[in-house]
Amino acid sequence: MRIDFKEIYEALYGILLKYNFSAEKADKLAETFTKSSLDGVYSHGINRFERFIETVKDGYVKIDTEPSKVLGFGNIERWNGNLGPGILNATFSMGKAIELAEQGGIGCVALSNTNHWMRGGTYGWQAAEAGYIGICWTNTNPNMPPWGGKTPVLGNNPLIISVPREEGHIVLDMAMSQYSYGKLQTYSLENNKLPFPCGWNDEGEITHDPDEVIANERIMPTGFWKGSSLSFVLDLLASILSGGDSTADIGLKEEEYGLSQVFIAFNVGGMNPDYIENLINEVLANLKSSEPLNKNSKVYYPGEQTLVTRKENMEKGIPVNKTIWKNIIKM
Amino acid sequence: MRIDFKEIYEALYGILLKYNFSAEKADKLAETFTKSSLDGVYSHGINRFERFIETVKDGYVKIDTEPSKVLGFGNIERWNGNLGPGILNATFSMGKAIELAEQGGIGCVALSNTNHWMRGGTYGWQAAEAGYIGICWTNTNPNMPPWGGKTPVLGNNPLIISVPREEGHIVLDMAMSQYSYGKLQTYSLENNKLPFPCGWNDEGEITHDPDEVIANERIMPTGFWKGSSLSFVLDLLASILSGGDSTADIGLKEEEYGLSQVFIAFNVGGMNPDYIENLINEVLANLKSSEPLNKNSKVYYPGEQTLVTRKENMEKGIPVNKTIWKNIIKM
Repeated sequence: MRIDFKEIYEALYGILLKYNFSAEKADKLAETFTKSSLDGVYSHGINRFERFIETVKDGYVKIDTEPSKVLGFGNIERWNGNLGPGILNATFSMGKAIELAEQGGIGCVALSNTNHWMRGGTYGWQAAEAGYIGICWTNTNPNMPPWGGKTPVLGNNPLIISVPREEGHIVLDMAMSQYSYGKLQTYSLENNKLPFPCGWNDEGEITHDPDEVIANERIMPTGFWKGSSLSFVLDLLASILSGGDSTADIGLKEEEYGLSQVFIAFNVGGMNPDYIENLINEVLANLKSSEPLNKNSKVYYPGEQTLVTRKENMEKGIPVNKTIWKNIIKM
Repeated sequence: MRIDFKEIYEALYGILLKYNFSAEKADKLAETFTKSSLDGVYSHGINRFERFIETVKDGYVKIDTEPSKVLGFGNIERWNGNLGPGILNATFSMGKAIELAEQGGIGCVALSNTNHWMRGGTYGWQAAEAGYIGICWTNTNPNMPPWGGKTPVLGNNPLIISVPREEGHIVLDMAMSQYSYGKLQTYSLENNKLPFPCGWNDEGEITHDPDEVIANERIMPTGFWKGSSLSFVLDLLASILSGGDSTADIGLKEEEYGLSQVFIAFNVGGMNPDYIENLINEVLANLKSSEPLNKNSKVYYPGEQTLVTRKENMEKGIPVNKTIWKNIIKM
């Protein structure tokens, strides 16, 4: 089924008010959850809403806290998320990084003690919409083995890089596993194997079978040893810069909460906007000039498909799983 | 054969003087080339020296230019490398980013019009040795197809992230292709196939055969679509921030020169050094706690094997290819 943006937003907004969020917070949260689904990131949009409310009920996500400044040194600041909703803390932090960059060219906010930011791309789009280049990443609970190991001690630590562009922002949003567990679930439901290695089976062999990996949590790092190392250093930077918990610390908790994140904004306002726009379009044209590998393949830039999905879902309504929607309107 | 660090350094230093480099520049260049081989990065150490001298003779690399400041806005600065040696420009730029971070928490230098920086890890080690977290990347000439395409329009754009640590810095140094062309050459010489997909063959099928990929330049991005997108945005950021040439522009030149790079340093000096050291060791211990996949596997942190190789090569001498060494001492 497809449901209008406005109807979904209003349903979520109403539920958030019922759970004692302020009108302002409920608005921002409902908008962000709905927008993620609008953009086709269903797993971290409406599909995740019930679980979000569970974490509120369980007290892991606090309803009425605000981020507080821990220390500031020039253009780098440390903030404590005080366990508020990840979406609000992350939006605040990217906003603060942009403020710092507005004054000083580049700004960085390291955020501790926050919660799952849902779709990481949200904060990349935020920076781009404000006219800034944005980079941000988060750590997560341990859910991926390192290269050479079998115990899942690394997080999949999504990394986002965005570039503002008039005709449509460029937004890379990549987790450090080759596939998300959500993608494995989709293939599992269709009884399909993944086209590329998705992890290791219990015998320590590389597998394309989603069920084996869903069961043993030995998901494949993207780029094999490379994604494993990148995940490791992103966690290290997030926990050092924020003074917050590392993936190791988060793994000791009974639930995933109290994460560490980094937000960096670059001010490109002092540069000639026409020059930048031309440069981006030249780099895009170069990308698109690559002859397709075969007649079924196409070269996309990061964020390109998002715009197509966004337009379609705005016009036709957002695809929503019937059961999920039923549960939501009962909440 | 193995040759002492000092003997190699002195040979390179002498040649650089012969090619009219100042004593200061010759010293820094000879040291960096030798250190790369010392650390086991032979491809961008001594093995690359002859080719470096060729680019000097051909006039692509200028002997007597210095980087010049193009613009500065707070903690972000643009510098023009004026086609000086990539090693000197990159060392200068990371040094300048550190200076900016010393004053203002975070510093960023975007460098245009520079040349191949050889081993990217050099500048990660530089930041870590100064006690700073460092991030840097470069664009390159087009040498990798994007996901879905077959024309190599992307660079392999190495990305470096480093973290200072008393017992040994953590330095990630990763190019955006799964394997380097150097690695393909090694496997080709041994008539071996790569353990993971190394690119596409002429029929557009994924291949493990190094010879097919050396010939057609369809090398595999790391993480398939993910490394392809990451390479794309790193090039975009480097060319936007520096105002320099993109991979597309570099591809129009008869040789690879005039590259764009970004250097970012984070000041962790205001944070409790014991806290940071403990945190890093905790994150490392967590990584190492992952049970090995099998009896032949081991989990390494980025930079760990470098330290082992460095120690061994310092004690026993640096492994040098006989033909390469013969050519060098004749120069």
